[in-house]
Amino acid sequence: MSHFDPALFKNNPSRELAFSVLDAALDAADPVKAVKRHVQFDGSMLRTGDRTYDLAQHEHLYVVGGGKAGAAMASAVEDILGDRITAGVINVKYGYTNPTRYIEINEAGHPIPDEAGVNGARRMLDLARAAGARDLVLCLISGGGSALMTAPAAGVTLADMQQLTEALLRSGATINEINAIRKHLSQIKGGHLAHLAYPATVVSLILSDVVGSPLDVIASGPTVPDGATFADARAIIARYGIAGDIPASITAHLARAEVETPKAGDPVFERVQNQIIAGNDIAAQAALEQACFLGFNSMILSTYVEGEAREVAKVFAAVAREILVCQRPLRRPACLIAGGETTVTLHGAGRGGRNQEMALAAAPRLDGLGEDVMVIALATDGTDGPTDAAGGIADGTTLTRARAAGLDLWAHLANNDSYHFLQRLGDLIVTGPTNTNVNDLIFVFVL
Amino acid sequence: MSHFDPALFKNNPSRELAFSVLDAALDAADPVKAVKRHVQFDGSMLRTGDRTYDLAQHEHLYVVGGGKAGAAMASAVEDILGDRITAGVINVKYGYTNPTRYIEINEAGHPIPDEAGVNGARRMLDLARAAGARDLVLCLISGGGSALMTAPAAGVTLADMQQLTEALLRSGATINEINAIRKHLSQIKGGHLAHLAYPATVVSLILSDVVGSPLDVIASGPTVPDGATFADARAIIARYGIAGDIPASITAHLARAEVETPKAGDPVFERVQNQIIAGNDIAAQAALEQACFLGFNSMILSTYVEGEAREVAKVFAAVAREILVCQRPLRRPACLIAGGETTVTLHGAGRGGRNQEMALAAAPRLDGLGEDVMVIALATDGTDGPTDAAGGIADGTTLTRARAAGLDLWAHLANNDSYHFLQRLGDLIVTGPTNTNVNDLIFVFVL
Repeated sequence: MSHFDPALFKNNPSRELAFSVLDAALDAADPVKAVKRHVQFDGSMLRTGDRTYDLAQHEHLYVVGGGKAGAAMASAVEDILGDRITAGVINVKYGYTNPTRYIEINEAGHPIPDEAGVNGARRMLDLARAAGARDLVLCLISGGGSALMTAPAAGVTLADMQQLTEALLRSGATINEINAIRKHLSQIKGGHLAHLAYPATVVSLILSDVVGSPLDVIASGPTVPDGATFADARAIIARYGIAGDIPASITAHLARAEVETPKAGDPVFERVQNQIIAGNDIAAQAALEQACFLGFNSMILSTYVEGEAREVAKVFAAVAREILVCQRPLRRPACLIAGGETTVTLHGAGRGGRNQEMALAAAPRLDGLGEDVMVIALATDGTDGPTDAAGGIADGTTLTRARAAGLDLWAHLANNDSYHFLQRLGDLIVTGPTNTNVNDLIFVFVL
Repeated sequence: MSHFDPALFKNNPSRELAFSVLDAALDAADPVKAVKRHVQFDGSMLRTGDRTYDLAQHEHLYVVGGGKAGAAMASAVEDILGDRITAGVINVKYGYTNPTRYIEINEAGHPIPDEAGVNGARRMLDLARAAGARDLVLCLISGGGSALMTAPAAGVTLADMQQLTEALLRSGATINEINAIRKHLSQIKGGHLAHLAYPATVVSLILSDVVGSPLDVIASGPTVPDGATFADARAIIARYGIAGDIPASITAHLARAEVETPKAGDPVFERVQNQIIAGNDIAAQAALEQACFLGFNSMILSTYVEGEAREVAKVFAAVAREILVCQRPLRRPACLIAGGETTVTLHGAGRGGRNQEMALAAAPRLDGLGEDVMVIALATDGTDGPTDAAGGIADGTTLTRARAAGLDLWAHLANNDSYHFLQRLGDLIVTGPTNTNVNDLIFVFVL
């Protein structure tokens, strides 16, 4: 079952081949498939990744977590573990739910946390606190988990947290600095959840939406050692001179430093398994395998690609040309894969997204190279920018077809209007929501 | 003999290793070495590239051409052919000369052509016209050759050409369109020189400063078939509605269409050998060979890299991180090579160039990866932007060293002041003028 509309590759077998590679990537990112690939249960032994747990030795099995893929992950876990699940609470974004039997799906605010989210998070904490040495806590983490699993420290309100965040953003603090402080104001983040569940066994299944998949950053690392301390948090506030802009409740909490976040080496983590079950890297690998299977000479260039979309596009177009002209770095038929997340600096008022704009900007640099030379950019969540498209295709005929259709590529690029340009040419990729997010993928195909 | 100041890699053996790869690239681009590598003469047989000419069968040997590397190329040709040379004229930029014995070095205006250049070009045309079936015309072409080998069609003045160029630039015509017209107003460009020399044998030794080394673009292709016609030239002027802005002499010449530029398939070109003796591709290949020799796992990613320097830098930093973390697309020790020419959109008033800015922008994305992870960008002519530096180095310690030195990387980047930042850290690459130009090279090293 392809994720893509067959109209996209009507009369174009090269595209059809290319999109079977994209399909493999999206399959690998699918939360249900990802859970089922990484978790097996034979009625007594539970295998997750490279570890095995004898559930006969475990009394209760609790499921907690949060993120936009939470409901899909919960359903997959129910399919696998069924009535072996004692209880569970998962926070998901409003509307991102589906029916479950053993795990409560709790809808909550995202990206701005709300009381519904806090209530759900408190119930998760209750489960974690109840878990003992003979229990297992299964934690399901996906993109959006940081906002969705909000449980401020005692005495701190959501409004306080909001005020802090605004002060930090204004101050010029880095995202790492902001997260270091947040982890010290949460009952979940920065390893607190694992700490609370101790001495229970904790297995975190993580669907990563962060470039490079750093465990301590995804959903602010509820089951991961924290590198920063309360002293660090206070130093950051002092460094940016924002002590006066911060609610008294927060200043008081940071001064008390009651429960330090658990650090690397803490025995808590001897009972924790953090397992990334899907991420950009895994999706790129799946694409690579499918490309190799189809006979493409294939390569993953990088899964850390960032930068302004229209400039990054030029580098990928340059690689496409190199493959065509010089048979480097791959011989034809070639498939080069990259991942990451680019950005768009808006200059115009058109409609588009970073992946669509990348296709638009690559097109003139592929001009004349034929339809078998393609640069394809895809948002794996199916939502590229504020559009209903997932990305776009550029090939060596785009510019010619645009001219024939009376479309001015440069004008659309200047107006950030990649959506309408690609739509008119039939080069817009539409998948609908994929219920997952492992960032973006970029493909260079030279058949 | 290294092109680089040993101070650059004092106490840093990784850098020393890396720069021996850069040295190999600059050696391959050196005009004297390039001529001697591609041209051999044993007293009777002249070998150029894959062809051999029996000079015993040739009466006269004329040398013509132009470009910034012209004097060095002429000296190398004199070393090889000595008194076998009948006569020669080479146009070079003012100051770019050196002593020669058989070939006249004529200094002329660049980038704005002047009468000295036109006079030299006329003498080249005289030699080409004089050459017969038993003669050989050796043509030495390098960067700047288009401006330096200016010979307007009869009745057209330099001032007329200047007026035309300004009108075309204002009109939004593409560089290809501008060149199509220029070739039809020249007695040299667009294959005219080869046409004039016919039936003599013509050997063009070409040092390419154009990304992708398209023969018809380098110095406007004096010995290369032209794809455009007089009718195309007139159509371009009509398309942009600039007929009224163009000197009458030019309008008249384009209407007469007396001598069409020679086209592919013209018997003229059966007697022409166009041999690229140095270019970005050849320099990148030489770097690759040296890197392999040193034991690096090596790859040329593309020789067509263009785009905004600070954004392109992010892609190369992403590749460096991928190599370090995932051993992809190369295992360590790794050397990834790319070529092309990036651009800088100026926002500040600092000093720098596209290669220095690329190093500056790469640095924060390598932060913490150590000094064995490097992104190095180099202008092969030794002149990066309006500076006396050739490029810069970023490594995984740049940001830390900058902080220790009280240097604000982001402020320097915002001010386009890469030069002073890199200079303070000892990461500025200075070679002095290299007397060649094969665009830029970008290196990712992960030791």
